[in-house]
Formats: sequence, C-alpha cells, structure tokens
Amino acid sequence: MPKLKGNLLIGQSGGPTPVINASLAGVLSEAKKIPEIEKIYGMKNGIEGALNKEVYDLTQEPEDLVKKLLYTPASVLGSCRHKLSKDEEYEQLLDLFKANNIRYFVYIGGNDSMDTCHKISKLAQERNYDMQVVGVPKTIDNDLPITDHCPGFGSAARFVALSTIESGRDLEAMKTFDDVAIFEIMGRHAGWLTAASVLGKRCDEDAPHLVYLPERNFDEVQFLADVKAVYDKLGYVYVALSEGVRDKDGEFIGAKDAATDAFGHKAISLSDGPGAYLAKLIKEKLGIKTRVNRPGTIQRAMAALASKTDVDEAFRAGQAAVEYFSQGITDVMVTLDRIPGAEYKIEIGKAPLEKVANVENFIPDHFINEAGNFVTKEFFDYCLPLIGDPIPDYARLVGMSIKLK
Amino acid sequence: MPKLKGNLLIGQSGGPTPVINASLAGVLSEAKKIPEIEKIYGMKNGIEGALNKEVYDLTQEPEDLVKKLLYTPASVLGSCRHKLSKDEEYEQLLDLFKANNIRYFVYIGGNDSMDTCHKISKLAQERNYDMQVVGVPKTIDNDLPITDHCPGFGSAARFVALSTIESGRDLEAMKTFDDVAIFEIMGRHAGWLTAASVLGKRCDEDAPHLVYLPERNFDEVQFLADVKAVYDKLGYVYVALSEGVRDKDGEFIGAKDAATDAFGHKAISLSDGPGAYLAKLIKEKLGIKTRVNRPGTIQRAMAALASKTDVDEAFRAGQAAVEYFSQGITDVMVTLDRIPGAEYKIEIGKAPLEKVANVENFIPDHFINEAGNFVTKEFFDYCLPLIGDPIPDYARLVGMSIKLK
Repeated sequence: MPKLKGNLLIGQSGGPTPVINASLAGVLSEAKKIPEIEKIYGMKNGIEGALNKEVYDLTQEPEDLVKKLLYTPASVLGSCRHKLSKDEEYEQLLDLFKANNIRYFVYIGGNDSMDTCHKISKLAQERNYDMQVVGVPKTIDNDLPITDHCPGFGSAARFVALSTIESGRDLEAMKTFDDVAIFEIMGRHAGWLTAASVLGKRCDEDAPHLVYLPERNFDEVQFLADVKAVYDKLGYVYVALSEGVRDKDGEFIGAKDAATDAFGHKAISLSDGPGAYLAKLIKEKLGIKTRVNRPGTIQRAMAALASKTDVDEAFRAGQAAVEYFSQGITDVMVTLDRIPGAEYKIEIGKAPLEKVANVENFIPDHFINEAGNFVTKEFFDYCLPLIGDPIPDYARLVGMSIKLK
Repeated sequence: MPKLKGNLLIGQSGGPTPVINASLAGVLSEAKKIPEIEKIYGMKNGIEGALNKEVYDLTQEPEDLVKKLLYTPASVLGSCRHKLSKDEEYEQLLDLFKANNIRYFVYIGGNDSMDTCHKISKLAQERNYDMQVVGVPKTIDNDLPITDHCPGFGSAARFVALSTIESGRDLEAMKTFDDVAIFEIMGRHAGWLTAASVLGKRCDEDAPHLVYLPERNFDEVQFLADVKAVYDKLGYVYVALSEGVRDKDGEFIGAKDAATDAFGHKAISLSDGPGAYLAKLIKEKLGIKTRVNRPGTIQRAMAALASKTDVDEAFRAGQAAVEYFSQGITDVMVTLDRIPGAEYKIEIGKAPLEKVANVENFIPDHFINEAGNFVTKEFFDYCLPLIGDPIPDYARLVGMSIKLK
C-alpha cells in the first residue's frame, strides 16, 4: 500500500500517439483501487497545466471514460513541449504540490518528457517533499532506452506498414504511368518507424524497395543510383524515407528553412520535407516522375489502425505506474522487457529516470543492411510482434500471365 | 442467358481504389456461373495490355482468389491512363477481339475509362462485331454522373474522415505548440472526398473547421481571414483542402510547375501541392505555424480501412455487369441507385455509356454552405451511409475542468 494519503497528478506530454490515452486509462483504472489515492487530477496540456493550475478532475470521470480512452486518439488531457528551466517554475510547482497535497505524479511521454519527469522527481527529493514520481513511456519514435520498445510505436508502425504495402500496390498497378513514390515518415533522429515500413513486404515486387534511416549518412549520389537500379529492374520504385535523413555533415536533407524548437532540436519543415526535395532531384537527374506521400500527423494519430498488442501494453504500462506507487517505488520509468523465446512475451520492468531522460535509442547496426538502404531479417523478428494482427497476404496473379493471339 | 459462346476480357483502369478488386471479384464469381462465358482474360494494365495482347488467364484462378480480392488494395490486374485515339489502335483491338473470340468486355474505371469503354462499344457496333460491353464505375473522386455514388469513394471517404477527426484530435492536444494543420486531399475537379473529411465531426472543437472544395473559387484573402477567425476562437485550426482548389481564373492554387497529362488535364505537383504553398502563406501573413498532412496515394489505397458497404457494393456492381450480359444488355455502365427513405438502400441500375463518358459530377450547391468553406447537413445525410461502420465517439473531458489551489 502507498504510505501517504494524497492526490495524484497525471499529465501527457510531447507528440501524441494512438495509445497514450490507453496508458491514462491504465492509471485511472488502477488508481481507483487504491484508497490512499484520493483525487486524480489530469494536467491540461502537460506541465503547462500544472504551472497554470489548470486540471481536469478525473475522480469525477463518467462511467465509460476508461473504456472510451482505449480507442481515443491523441492526448485527451492535451499535451505540450514545454521545457522546465526557470527557477520560478520549480517554485510554482512545489507550491502547487504542497497546496493540493499531490503525493503521486505520473508523466506519460518521450525523451523530453522523461527529462521533465526526472527534474520534478529531483525537485521533490531536494526539497524533502514526499512525492512519488513515475514516468510512463510513450513515443511513436521508439527511441527511449532500456525498454524493449515504447507504447505508441507498435500502432504507428502498423499504420506505416499497412500504408506502405497498400500504396506500394497502388504504385505497382500504375507503373505504366507513375515511376517513383517516396513515403516520408516521422522520426527526427531515430528511424524505427521508417524501418517498420517493411513489415508487410513478402516479395521483391512489394513495397518498399529502399529504406533510408537517420542512423546512416544520406548520400544523394548513392540514393539516385539506388533508385535507378530498382527502376531498371521493376519499372517502379517505392522509397521509405525518414524525415530525419541527414548528410555526412549532419544537415537535414532539403531543410533549408530549419529553425530550432524549445528543446534546441533543429526542426524539419512542417510543409515540405526531404521527400519534396528528393522528388525534384529525381525528376531533374533521372527524368522520372516522383510522388510524395507525407501523411504527417495522421501516422501518429490513427487509432483506427492501432495495434491490439500496443493498446494492451500501453494500458498495462499505465497500471504499472500505480503498482509502483503501492510498492513505494519512485523516480523510475516503466519499461517493457521482452522475455527471450520463440513466442512473443513481455514483462513490466523499470528504469531509473536519470538513465532515460534525454537519452535516445537508435536502431542497432545488426538491424540495418550493409548498403544502408534496407533492414535485416533480425529487424522483422524484433518488430513484427509489436504491430498486432498480421498484415494480410494480398492477392497476386503469379503464373497466370499469357499472351493472346 | 448470353446469346454467344465466347470469352470475357476485363480490365481495371485509372487511379486504383481500395475496392476495385472487389468489383473484379464480383465479375469472376458471377461469370463462372455462365456456361457461355468460356475463358476470362484480365488485361495487364488496362487497355494497354489489350493492345500488347498481354493478359492473365483468370479462368485458372486459384480457389481463394475471389475471397482475397475482397481485401486486396489497388488494381491487381494493373492499371493505366492510356487514351485511345489512333486508328491503328482500334484495328489492333478489333483484331484481338476476333482472333480470341472476345464476346464480353468489362472495364472498371472512372470518367476517362468510361470514355475508353464507350469507344470500344462504338467500335464493335460500327464494325458489326457482336460483343457486349459493360462499364463498372470506380473512383475515389465520386465524380461519375447518374450513379448515386461510385464504388471506391466510400472507402477513401472513410480513410479521410478517420484521418481528419484523429489527426484533428492530435492538433487540438498540441495547441500550445502547433497552430494550423492543412490536410491536402485528392480530387482534381470534384471535392467529394474533401467534403467527406467532416463525417467524424461532432462538435465545434472537432476537425475540420474549414473545408475548401474545387466547386468554389478559392480566394487567398478570404482563406486567411477564415483561418484567423477560427484561430482566434479555438487557438488551433484544422483545414481540409482539396488538391484541386483554383482561383477565380481557374488556375490551381500554388501549381506553378503544372504540366498536362495524356487526357489534357493540368497536373497538380506530385511532391508539393497547394497545402505547402498555403502553409507558407499563413506563416508569412498570420505568423502562425502550419503543418501539412498529404497522404497522397495512401488515401486511395488503404484497404485496411475499407468501408464494408463499399466493398459489398463494389462486388455487386461487378456481378451486375455479368448479369447484364445474360440479359443481352450492352453499352451501359452499372449504376448504384439510392432508394429514397430513412434507411439507406441501393438498387443496381444502368446508364448509357455515352451519357457517362467524360462527364463529371460535381458537388451540388445544397451540399455546400453559403460561405463556401464547409458543407451542409444534407451532405452528411448523403455521405454517412457510404462509409460503413460509424466513426467512433471518442472521449472528451467536458465539464471536468477545475482550477487547483
């Protein structure tokens, strides 16, 4: 049992995922069972809501809220990308915790949010304010360390895998008219989501044919040679391109208007990224037509295609945060630890917040092919269980081709 | 019963849809019941395959093909955008029909394809070659006349409606960081698919807030005023924008590099359309950040989100083509005729090919609001039954907002 009677403050932060509300549902359903947790407050727009004292009283939740949260996209509490830095903000937060008897703090988010979470945990410890702090991982980028993978990734990966194989069939059908399609996929620094584009591929003809990740330097000359080689063989080329591809000097490809965000990250254009730039390059250098598919925030919002495995794990990660409170555990992020073996299984674990805050987990070398333009079989093995139901085996008319008189 | 023993030639043409293969499945399953239809040949890449004598012998179909076609995206036979115009092509086709005893011809396609279909029908009639010709409508653009709607539209509309409401929730969650999102939606001349973006909207906060269709002249000054008004009220703006929006002179917005295709249509940039242009305009004139979601061919390929109603109707439309052969009917396109009444029901009808070839069906005035920036309730009533299962009612924390101490 938790040692103190008090209130729980929870927030969602950073870019939404299709299952970040499932983690909130996990926290709510578990917290209701703990008599020591009196009120549950949801910060409006993450830590900004805490600074403004604006919250939702989730204790008064309607009956069906937890159930609805399991399929509701985006962050129902609202999100933010606020970086805690000013001394007065820490004072404000401490005052808020004391005035409202906040003894339990949950933050659902990615790297930057785990940094916020860790700062709050340190603040409470340094100022001898008795409060337990647990982070719940969330990111379609799958770039948090220690955890095997992050809630949110499997669902976005499912969207990307389905979009690639299905729009790849579209390109193949239109090959007498269309030449190249570039699918520009989210992931500023880590290419996990772009790599997931391969998961529906069953044969050479299926998309994608080329995959470019931020983990490898992007070389325009090699890229054009790769595209030409596939085009000469198949008559069409489907490219899965991470929005975060960079040249050998670390500059984002085609990002001339780059600005920096609150966390100092260089931004990629929100209206036309590397895909549009490379489409023009292909047209200019190879003289072939290139389409760009750039679903943008649709890829991180599409709850209608959520992975069932991901929804379930996101919910369990939320529950685990409250279980850790019961066990007196604080200053950790919930992790999903994969149990080795042929059958996919995870168990819930934990990692110290200081070890995850601001640390990025990139795709390891053995998941990327030598040419740096595709993934390995090991990546398929790692990723396939995360996207839930298998990608359908679509019809192909193999061996039925004839020539009429 | 059909009067002649002979072979059936079938093709898919134009941009694919998630259910064009369901129509093929309908033709196959019905044709197998007709002893007069001996062989079923599927043209490789539409009429281009017929000109090259390259086909699939679908008579040898594997057992599970019809079932698989019901969920297989894009055109499994391959597609094309070839415009029949040369005299020698007509001779080639007539020779092919005669040499291979083609007595039944089915073409599944949109406006341009119905033009091809009509030309072939005329050719056979003029040259006294006894062949029945039936067109099966297919287009995500929903712009074929006479039919109440087109197979393919309902599924693409479902994708667009889900993408809008879900990525709209993403924008709303991120409103402390993001300002405007523009969803650029397919539809060169008719705005049906863009209009379908509204179908998940239940309240003012839900996306979209503004809808721009090719049926109305696009005015940049009015657009900026519209965006600013919503932004001042909500703090974020979700815009559903047809790729085909044009100014009062008929020029596509932001289409500087426009070229023309084989049918003489002016093309919209395949890499960055009006969305990217308007995002920069908003940034420049209003000083607020704008994201562009541009899923491109994903929106017409996503069989994973197909409307069950649409799959069923596409299959029935395919079956109907063969039924018309049995009834001695030729030179028609299958239509879906809506039966008036509170409950949604259609019956299969037909329209002369000459009345549908190259005729575009635009959104009628009573489906568009007076300001030209949204749709009317009548449009919801028309469109909602077409997208299959209802869009979920996602969680909102209405009335739970409080201020902490």
